Amino acid sequence: MSLLVVGSVAFDAIETPFGKVDRTLGGAASYFALAASHFVPVRMVAIVGEDFSDKDRAVFKGRKIDLSGLEHAAGKSFFWSGRYSQNMNERTTLATELNVFAEFKPTLPDTYLDTKHVFLGNIQPGLQQSVLHQLNGKPRIVGLDTMNYWIEGSNAQLRETLKHVDILTINDDETRQLTGEHNLIRASRHVFKLGPKILIIKRGEHGALMVHPKFIFSVPAFPLEQVHDPTGAGDTFAGGFMGYLAKAGSMNEQNLRRAMVYGSVLASFTVEKFGVERLAKVTRREIDQRARKFAKLTAFKL
Amino acid sequence: MSLLVVGSVAFDAIETPFGKVDRTLGGAASYFALAASHFVPVRMVAIVGEDFSDKDRAVFKGRKIDLSGLEHAAGKSFFWSGRYSQNMNERTTLATELNVFAEFKPTLPDTYLDTKHVFLGNIQPGLQQSVLHQLNGKPRIVGLDTMNYWIEGSNAQLRETLKHVDILTINDDETRQLTGEHNLIRASRHVFKLGPKILIIKRGEHGALMVHPKFIFSVPAFPLEQVHDPTGAGDTFAGGFMGYLAKAGSMNEQNLRRAMVYGSVLASFTVEKFGVERLAKVTRREIDQRARKFAKLTAFKL
Repeated sequence: MSLLVVGSVAFDAIETPFGKVDRTLGGAASYFALAASHFVPVRMVAIVGEDFSDKDRAVFKGRKIDLSGLEHAAGKSFFWSGRYSQNMNERTTLATELNVFAEFKPTLPDTYLDTKHVFLGNIQPGLQQSVLHQLNGKPRIVGLDTMNYWIEGSNAQLRETLKHVDILTINDDETRQLTGEHNLIRASRHVFKLGPKILIIKRGEHGALMVHPKFIFSVPAFPLEQVHDPTGAGDTFAGGFMGYLAKAGSMNEQNLRRAMVYGSVLASFTVEKFGVERLAKVTRREIDQRARKFAKLTAFKL
Repeated sequence: MSLLVVGSVAFDAIETPFGKVDRTLGGAASYFALAASHFVPVRMVAIVGEDFSDKDRAVFKGRKIDLSGLEHAAGKSFFWSGRYSQNMNERTTLATELNVFAEFKPTLPDTYLDTKHVFLGNIQPGLQQSVLHQLNGKPRIVGLDTMNYWIEGSNAQLRETLKHVDILTINDDETRQLTGEHNLIRASRHVFKLGPKILIIKRGEHGALMVHPKFIFSVPAFPLEQVHDPTGAGDTFAGGFMGYLAKAGSMNEQNLRRAMVYGSVLASFTVEKFGVERLAKVTRREIDQRARKFAKLTAFKL
């Protein structure tokens, strides 16, 4: 029932209209693992530098997060710095220092090789594929995230990797860029031809849309009074989604819909504070409470 | 059970990536009336010029739309011309010719004076208020739409008018401009102090959010394969919403939620073709079918 995630563990400097932090634990794999670990044991594959301290490691402690695939390398960890606009709909990247991440070659510990649920975080598509190759046997569910940089720069490798992917989680623009199709419903049919059976379009403050060949499901973002930092919301969503699905065990329609809700629930906690601060503290009880609020947010009877 | 709408009837020239029309019937009151007339008889208050032909009038024929409040004046009708961007998220106004609309002083025929459900479309706030003053007695439900131009230029009159309004239907930016509050949930509390009991935030392709002091309800836009022209979607939404609510008779929670769905359903038809072309032909059967699809689009069980 374990869920493997490969991706970045980073330090972020973030500025939003609500404040500023100079160094906070971040990276897609961090948000993903913290979210997913509420549902299933998580196996992380990532790389950090010498600046990754015991205090940083402690964020993952006491949870079902296996860090034996977290490689420690000489040098500094991936560092990202960004500033959000007044309305937080736009962000400017101020610095991207890949550091040890530039040489990242994901290597799975032997104890990870039987993993049946895999999430290939947003890294170079060839590396994503190498993770699948290392596994013993075909996983039950493979999810993948990517971005404009890889769609443009590693298109052939990305298409090769997508052949082995069940669920693609990207945003509106990435969907359009990948398919060359503006309309998202028509774009989804293009995606299905590339391999994935399910397209999840992440829309930030507007929630997420799941397009399956047989149904479409829309989930809103939870309306919050306080959004302090949107960083990591998409990765948290993916973690909650994949975690719920891995636990449920099957990709039937009801499970897929519920997984979307849990992804959105987890993401709504992440954005309440800076970095992983809120996500690292949320309890399963709070998660379930907010899931019930989601039900009220969208329910109607004709 | 009748529903009065005051607003513009116009001719539009529209260009989108899917085509171009030089002269199509438009204006907020046109979209509103066509949508609302599926639920209740509509009484229109608007002004047109000598260019408004029998053929234009025929668009409203055979429906429960009373045009005795449609004033005919010397001169030309309101004309608007606009072009949508490739992704249709932005539009550039190429021309706004107020023509007879510049001198519009809404005058209610005697037969309208008993109307209990009123929608004050996006016109000068003093004129909106004059419509309420003309009515015999206090209406049961008053909805209002407005825009940045009036929020900025006629702020005091708008605030005076809002004291008599139950439901405010505006977009994200207008909500922020009116309240000076970025967060939409906090902004809604500000709106409640101004008079309205309910705030409906229209979000275009992202659907609509209703904020009531006791609950929040989110409805997505219907995912369509063909969006040819977004013009009038917001006015159609308002028409479907107010029409359903006027028919239901009471503003209880279930009715308000259903009204949001019907508003979104009607709007989803409008955008399928240019101008009012699709809206003018949609049947009640098609409306109910799509409402059931909305239920599937958002349903989940925890």
